[in-house]
Amino acid sequence: MAEATLVAIPGLPDVRPGMSLPDLLVRALERAGLRPADGDVLVVAQKVVSKAEGHLVDLATVTPGDEARRLAREAVKDPRLVEVILRESTRVVRAHHGVLITEHRLGFICANAGVDHSNVGLGPEVVSLLPRDPDASAGAIRDAVHTAFGVPIAVIINDSHGRPHREGAVGVCIGAAGLEPLLSLVGRPDLYGYTLRTSVEAVADELAAAATLLQGQCDEGTPAVLIRGIRIAQGPGGAARLLRDPSRDLFR
Amino acid sequence: MAEATLVAIPGLPDVRPGMSLPDLLVRALERAGLRPADGDVLVVAQKVVSKAEGHLVDLATVTPGDEARRLAREAVKDPRLVEVILRESTRVVRAHHGVLITEHRLGFICANAGVDHSNVGLGPEVVSLLPRDPDASAGAIRDAVHTAFGVPIAVIINDSHGRPHREGAVGVCIGAAGLEPLLSLVGRPDLYGYTLRTSVEAVADELAAAATLLQGQCDEGTPAVLIRGIRIAQGPGGAARLLRDPSRDLFR
Repeated sequence: MAEATLVAIPGLPDVRPGMSLPDLLVRALERAGLRPADGDVLVVAQKVVSKAEGHLVDLATVTPGDEARRLAREAVKDPRLVEVILRESTRVVRAHHGVLITEHRLGFICANAGVDHSNVGLGPEVVSLLPRDPDASAGAIRDAVHTAFGVPIAVIINDSHGRPHREGAVGVCIGAAGLEPLLSLVGRPDLYGYTLRTSVEAVADELAAAATLLQGQCDEGTPAVLIRGIRIAQGPGGAARLLRDPSRDLFR
Repeated sequence: MAEATLVAIPGLPDVRPGMSLPDLLVRALERAGLRPADGDVLVVAQKVVSKAEGHLVDLATVTPGDEARRLAREAVKDPRLVEVILRESTRVVRAHHGVLITEHRLGFICANAGVDHSNVGLGPEVVSLLPRDPDASAGAIRDAVHTAFGVPIAVIINDSHGRPHREGAVGVCIGAAGLEPLLSLVGRPDLYGYTLRTSVEAVADELAAAATLLQGQCDEGTPAVLIRGIRIAQGPGGAARLLRDPSRDLFR
């Protein structure tokens, strides 16, 4: 019987800037008796990565520029927050009452360029940014697990993003190491021998979404989830593979 | 330790038109010794629902109209297939070489209005349509499981859809019974007491995506997955809740 399990790794401390998240994860796995195996996927929430790496801004230290002030009026937002969002972004997609959607410098199109107040806990005006290089963050965790357990697992950094056409946010992959984020079935036969012509599955996003179901944003906060039993393809990773070239984006 | 499991239900036969999918699922659960429990979510692939319900079209019987012929030239597709897609759609979003994206009459924006050749296996030109009423299909499965096991589980019908901004398709919920598709955390405190202001999670889509990881499109075909251990909110279901009102869709 094909079966997969998702385990929320218990015992992670409150992550603070300067802590080594790879070490904390290795120790939490050891304490929980969770021995990673080949083919496992460790999904870690962006928020704790950013906190450990100190990728944070205290809004009290920010002076908004002219563009941020103008956009803050349009979006009805704190101009200092808008200033931080603009610094993280390459373009503004949409500004509307309470909502600012931009393209993050890493290519993700999401609300507030991923700049977020929630689950930071380091002061009333401290916000978190997305990690500087989420693929590298995933790679560092992968290396630490490999060193500690001798097993080359896959690692995904996930975040929750809103999306066009559909309500609600879903977990998506913003950093990946050790797996192919996309699984192409093009050219393979289906169950009846029909050759699949267009099927490419965003496996890394589906793993990210599955982990989000266990991570929790409120009291239950368990930012790291070990997924076992899903057949993944090993590969170098790289979440940019999941970004659609705008010129080929027919779904917009 | 918070843990969730996904089990691909073994032993489903090759589903053919006229079979009762709810009965087949109940029998497969019984044979596998899988006793559904309160809080479980059963995710069933759209394809077997459509096949059991006979929502299929043999292209050999289709005469394309003028609009289908014109659009077929634009999209470089079989005019008969385009005719079927148009009958299923309320509007064309985009036509391009090999790609036709429409709004399905149920509100989903996806390639080919969900009309699909793959994994049908009923003749070289037989395509499947989306179920007529996927919420009702989910409800019928839920009722059958309730009757057989005395437990009110949640049921999701899923399909793989492409999306704007990101490469690859992911599993999404197109029919739901017995759960709230969206989980709103607005107004709840985060781990540090900060009040969440915008967090709404599309739980049904994340469950649909998780199940897709086990369903497989090729040799492994296991279209039904039982998910256990995810905290869901009971509710009437209704996948239309997951559709964003175009006038409020700032992500486009």
